[in-house]
Amino acid sequence: MKRLFVHATILTMKEGEVPLKDAAMAVEDDRIAYVGPVPSETDGYDEVVNMTGKAILPGFVNTHGHAAMSLLRGFADDDPLQTWLEEKIWPMEARFGPEQNRWGSALSVLEMIKGGTTCFLDMYDYMDQVGQVVEEAGIRAVLCRGAIGLCSEEERKAKLEEAVNFAREWNGAAKGRITTMMAPHAPYTCPPDYIVRFVEKAQELGIPIHTHMSETEAEVRLNVEQYGLRPVEHLRRLGFFDVPALVAHAVHLTPEEIGILAEYGVKVSHNPGSNLKLGSGIAPIPEMLKAGIRPSLGTDGPASNNNLDMLEEIRLAALIHKGVNRDPQAVPAPVALRMGTLYGAESLFLEDRIGTLESGKKADFITVDLTGPHMQPLHDVESHLVYSASRDDVLDVYVDGRPLLRNRECLTLDEEKIRYHAQRAFDAIRP
Amino acid sequence: MKRLFVHATILTMKEGEVPLKDAAMAVEDDRIAYVGPVPSETDGYDEVVNMTGKAILPGFVNTHGHAAMSLLRGFADDDPLQTWLEEKIWPMEARFGPEQNRWGSALSVLEMIKGGTTCFLDMYDYMDQVGQVVEEAGIRAVLCRGAIGLCSEEERKAKLEEAVNFAREWNGAAKGRITTMMAPHAPYTCPPDYIVRFVEKAQELGIPIHTHMSETEAEVRLNVEQYGLRPVEHLRRLGFFDVPALVAHAVHLTPEEIGILAEYGVKVSHNPGSNLKLGSGIAPIPEMLKAGIRPSLGTDGPASNNNLDMLEEIRLAALIHKGVNRDPQAVPAPVALRMGTLYGAESLFLEDRIGTLESGKKADFITVDLTGPHMQPLHDVESHLVYSASRDDVLDVYVDGRPLLRNRECLTLDEEKIRYHAQRAFDAIRP
Repeated sequence: MKRLFVHATILTMKEGEVPLKDAAMAVEDDRIAYVGPVPSETDGYDEVVNMTGKAILPGFVNTHGHAAMSLLRGFADDDPLQTWLEEKIWPMEARFGPEQNRWGSALSVLEMIKGGTTCFLDMYDYMDQVGQVVEEAGIRAVLCRGAIGLCSEEERKAKLEEAVNFAREWNGAAKGRITTMMAPHAPYTCPPDYIVRFVEKAQELGIPIHTHMSETEAEVRLNVEQYGLRPVEHLRRLGFFDVPALVAHAVHLTPEEIGILAEYGVKVSHNPGSNLKLGSGIAPIPEMLKAGIRPSLGTDGPASNNNLDMLEEIRLAALIHKGVNRDPQAVPAPVALRMGTLYGAESLFLEDRIGTLESGKKADFITVDLTGPHMQPLHDVESHLVYSASRDDVLDVYVDGRPLLRNRECLTLDEEKIRYHAQRAFDAIRP
Repeated sequence: MKRLFVHATILTMKEGEVPLKDAAMAVEDDRIAYVGPVPSETDGYDEVVNMTGKAILPGFVNTHGHAAMSLLRGFADDDPLQTWLEEKIWPMEARFGPEQNRWGSALSVLEMIKGGTTCFLDMYDYMDQVGQVVEEAGIRAVLCRGAIGLCSEEERKAKLEEAVNFAREWNGAAKGRITTMMAPHAPYTCPPDYIVRFVEKAQELGIPIHTHMSETEAEVRLNVEQYGLRPVEHLRRLGFFDVPALVAHAVHLTPEEIGILAEYGVKVSHNPGSNLKLGSGIAPIPEMLKAGIRPSLGTDGPASNNNLDMLEEIRLAALIHKGVNRDPQAVPAPVALRMGTLYGAESLFLEDRIGTLESGKKADFITVDLTGPHMQPLHDVESHLVYSASRDDVLDVYVDGRPLLRNRECLTLDEEKIRYHAQRAFDAIRP
């Protein structure tokens, strides 16, 4: 299958490249074959699509989340993280079975596709269910069985084994769209030796490792009380950064800790919506950027956000650091857009495959309507995407060259069926 | 014309009232005639509308903006306020003529209607143009000719006269949908005696007064240098708060200043998107709420936001104060929703007419789709509207009982024509 998109505004997201006007992109099967001026010859294509009034850019990459938690959207709001977790979320999650995970994940994947996300990281339980949803939906994903170690050694062992088996079996599944990671939940929920066992397994399997880190001040304080160290140095000493590592949140960091993350090439998933909503604080993104870290963006679970809208995370990343630092140049629009695309691909160690539009890369891209009143006058497309667009401006979504969304209709998932089953799965466990 | 909406989730926005499930609302001509359980008898209505899967709430009230500035959307980004104003915006505004004001305003009004805004405040120039757009569009508006006093006495006099004439002629226009205010631009752009003349005219005309206040630290410092007083005490001594007053921004306030604003019943327009984007800072909204002030929300001009999406301002108001104060209970969802509706009506001194859904009030309301994946499971509608909805979930918009938007199609304005003319008006003045 050879498709040619012509007369588009193309944002390749390659470093330093400005949007290409009236440009073309060719897609051959699952790969991008060409990006550049509109060719004079368009023979030999199965489809030539006129993109006047539309932009093409790489799909958004959501680098931290818990998809099945969409079932708990709005169930517990306006509470601090520990209350939210311990009194509301964990008791509900204890009632989750495969049904809840299946339909919660399907609901989230549907929402993500409709918002232009082409790749997401998921750290949760019953990961087979998530894997099956990813297979069916056609989206790309990095999956990991998250393990909380506040339990008996027997349970810990079982969880680790489950995580290893899942990571081994599903790595490369769904025609290569699924890759896997190891994921101890967090330093405050996993004893040090349990974290070390995950690091060893990641090394053994040759896959990256992912965890929550320094999300709240309380958690940092606890780490110092328990281990005499702040989380970054604690994880460093456990060898966590000796494997390719991605940490989510990283809200409470000292300049020294930022230095360590930069030195070890640790990837960071910035979750502005969740951090604001739970009152966790605001991550020092401008300082990270200055240190050479290229943070990506994650929505976190839909129960702490409460949506999976990557354009909103991009906008929040562009806005809040300006306001908090009283510096209107803190995170410029082109950087915010890259945080949601290219830096996302880098954070998931997939930048050889996705994150920019260039010949040879996987054809994971979205098209965006530029004709809405909020996009006029059509002066600076990058600015408009960051500061003015909304998820409903996303018209089409392609992964591996396959259309998943066309003119806002999802082609791979049954929206009504998912809505019905998600409500039913929630009703079955609500108090 | 008598319309009955049945089986809706109704958010009346009355203080303390939770969403009504499976409820009904009757509209007779321009007024709400009934809100409550679905009546058993539906005879005598011209139209009975089934609202299953939809919510009804009051239209959003945008309490501070400069509509015509949509033409400058994306023209100057990622600059501090004074550079942005003095080097980019003011030189471009100097080239604005009636055409720019007409099509810039029309573009903004179109965007506002499509985002569920039923009433907006506009402070700008060539206000006749804005008035005509409001008449045509069917929206409600509070209009004021903003006057910058950094000019000759002759020019000052002309501007004041224009402001007075406009305020007198247009108050009550468009079948009462337009009301007016007096609006000296800001303490840092208007000499004290010039502000006093606006206060006197507001008193004389019996209308409220509006200004920018304490948006940036630099502006507060300048006020202290020039007048030995911070802006609040400065305005208080000029009699500004002796007339019904609305101040926009109010970012940099001391506890004493919050006390004065509360004592005088001064209304506040919180503009979170603009304040973040321009790096102005974050207004002390939780402290204002504690002092009994009920802040409303404004988008500010589309060149400093860069959109007119009130749902986004509502979400920002709910999110940023939680994050900055590390208090997840800072601005709960129901308060944020009221900031965008009821408190907006109060800020424009229109709460006798709009702001809540109750019998006798004007039928200014919107309907919102609850079936999107991001709105599932349908557990807490207020939470979903604040934390998860987007402007495209707004299906219908009514003002004075007249439909302006139906199923996302604007019935009163020609979208394509406005897009064409807005681009043309911008191209005519771009450098």
